[in-house]
Amino acid sequence: MSDYTYFEDFVVGSKLETPPLTVTEADIINFATQFDPQPMHTNPAAAEQITGGLIASGWHTASLTMKLLITGRQYNPAPGTVGLGFESLKWLKPVRPGDTLRLQLELLAVRNSESKPGWGIITNRFTTLNQHGEPVQTMVSSAIVPKRNK
Amino acid sequence: MSDYTYFEDFVVGSKLETPPLTVTEADIINFATQFDPQPMHTNPAAAEQITGGLIASGWHTASLTMKLLITGRQYNPAPGTVGLGFESLKWLKPVRPGDTLRLQLELLAVRNSESKPGWGIITNRFTTLNQHGEPVQTMVSSAIVPKRNK
Repeated sequence: MSDYTYFEDFVVGSKLETPPLTVTEADIINFATQFDPQPMHTNPAAAEQITGGLIASGWHTASLTMKLLITGRQYNPAPGTVGLGFESLKWLKPVRPGDTLRLQLELLAVRNSESKPGWGIITNRFTTLNQHGEPVQTMVSSAIVPKRNK
Repeated sequence: MSDYTYFEDFVVGSKLETPPLTVTEADIINFATQFDPQPMHTNPAAAEQITGGLIASGWHTASLTMKLLITGRQYNPAPGTVGLGFESLKWLKPVRPGDTLRLQLELLAVRNSESKPGWGIITNRFTTLNQHGEPVQTMVSSAIVPKRNK
């Protein structure tokens, strides 16, 4: 039996939550310096004036959400599984140094791919929470997944 | 006169394109090792079998799109300007080592904020192109921006 997760393994309505990870000030500055060099993300003193202290780039939060997805659960996607994009990504609250994030996933839909026989599309709601249980980011995301039995 | 860009400076229908940036194999592996550790993004030999060679994490493409936005144009957002999230992000083609990306922006809408007097919401279509002029990522994104004259 394969260890991989195939289309047939996804059950609509199933939920899971990952273990947490903590974001440091250095993490926030390092990401933003590379990808989103704005003072509110890179300069603690300037950020104090703008946003009451350093806040993470939204793309950092999104990337950490991907990290939680990939590293935070028993999940070994079948080769070829790939994200197609997302709908309705919202950043609801700032992520600040020392915040601890975890990801809740709810499988909203599974359907056959119309263009690619032997494959299916899964759609999940992603909710990234902080240590207070507050959503910091939500999105709905789809991926294409191979079927075990083609 | 302020150097900052305020709500009043945004004109619906305006378009711009950033200078390009090139993505290296090391960039792709470095990002994915941190945020999206899957073989198609981190292991060239394994990726050869899965995706015909290494491909960038979609979140890397999204983060590079932010980098193009922030560093690739004359743009000095007024303090407080912050992205609210995104609709309809699609990854249309893989980004591979050596690809050169640029960003086209089209301002789709401007409106007053209903909840925050003195502020407005701008909505842009983001199209990230490769060196062949092919879109690799599209999305529609909104940000809240302060008005110059409150």
